[in-house]
Amino acid sequence: MERYRIVFSGSGGQGVITSAIILAEAAVLHENLTAVQSQVYGAEARGGSTRSDVIISDSEIYFPKVTQPNVLVCLTQEAYNKFSGIIRPGGLLITDAKYVEITKKVDARQREIPMYEAVMEKIGKPIVFNICMLGVFIGMTELVKPESVMSVLERRIPKGFLELNRHALQLGMDLTEGVRR
Amino acid sequence: MERYRIVFSGSGGQGVITSAIILAEAAVLHENLTAVQSQVYGAEARGGSTRSDVIISDSEIYFPKVTQPNVLVCLTQEAYNKFSGIIRPGGLLITDAKYVEITKKVDARQREIPMYEAVMEKIGKPIVFNICMLGVFIGMTELVKPESVMSVLERRIPKGFLELNRHALQLGMDLTEGVRR
Repeated sequence: MERYRIVFSGSGGQGVITSAIILAEAAVLHENLTAVQSQVYGAEARGGSTRSDVIISDSEIYFPKVTQPNVLVCLTQEAYNKFSGIIRPGGLLITDAKYVEITKKVDARQREIPMYEAVMEKIGKPIVFNICMLGVFIGMTELVKPESVMSVLERRIPKGFLELNRHALQLGMDLTEGVRR
Repeated sequence: MERYRIVFSGSGGQGVITSAIILAEAAVLHENLTAVQSQVYGAEARGGSTRSDVIISDSEIYFPKVTQPNVLVCLTQEAYNKFSGIIRPGGLLITDAKYVEITKKVDARQREIPMYEAVMEKIGKPIVFNICMLGVFIGMTELVKPESVMSVLERRIPKGFLELNRHALQLGMDLTEGVRR
C-alpha cells in the first residue's frame, strides 16, 4: 500500500489529537496496519494551533515525523495559513468550508467541506466535529473502514455517546459523496 | 536543562497516552518548554501493551522517537517485561507495586510505588490512576509544576471532575515523599 502521511490541524479544543489517535488505533487494532501518531508542541501550540501527525503503513515505520503530508486537514484559518505550504505535491488538502478561506494555490487537490456547518445543523453538538472530520477523511481516502473506527470508539467512550459519534462519523462520510477524490 | 526522554507504559485503558499528552501540554503551555509526544503502534498494541513517549526540552527537538528513556514508568507486568530493558543507564524506573513484580536488575534507580493501591484506598476510582501516576512522575522529577498540570486539566475536563483529579495528582506526589530520587 501507499504510505499515508497525515496531518490534522486546528485549534486546541477541536479534538484533532483525539481523532488522530482514534485513526491510528483503528488502523492498528482492526486493519492489521502499523501506525505512528505524534504531536510536536512548540511556539505554535502556545499560539493556539494544534497539529497532530499520523503515519499509517503496512510495513514498519522508522521515522515518525511527517514533513510533507499527503493528506492535510485544516479546521481553522490559522492552521491553514501555517500548514498548507507543507502539503506533498499531488496530495489532498481538506478544509472546513466555514472556518477556512482558501487564499493560496497549492499543488494539491483542494476540497472545502462544510463539516462544522453540517454538524451544527444535523446534530447540534460541536463536540463531535472531530468525528465528523474523521468521517470525511475516511470517506475521501477509504484508508480504514468506518466499523474499525466504531470499534475503537466502543472501547473509549461511554455507551450513551456511541450513537452520537456514529451519527457524526456517518455525516462526515455522507459529506464526501459526489466529491471528487 | 537535561533533555528528558520519557516512556509511560501499561495496558490499553489505563490512560497512559492521555497522561503523556497532559504532561507535554503542561510543559509547553505553562513552562515555556518544548515537547514532542508520540505513540508507536504495532504488534505490541495488538498484544495489549500501550507505550507513549514524551521528550521535553528547553530547545528544539529534531528527532521525536525515544530509544532510551531516562524515565520509564511501567504500570503492568507485560509492559515491564517488554520495556524495562530499554532504560538509559542511570535512569529512573518507576513501577506500580501491585501490578509489577521486579524480576531483573537494570542499571537504573528502581522505585516501586503503590500507585494503584493508593488510588483505590484513598479515592476508590481507578479512572484517575493515570493522574496519580503523573503526580508520582512530577514528585520524582520536578520537571513541571503541579499547577501547570492542573491548568491543562482545567481546559480538558468538566469542572465537576477537577477536584477528583487534583486529589489524584496530589496523592501521587505524596507517595514520593521520603522516596529517594
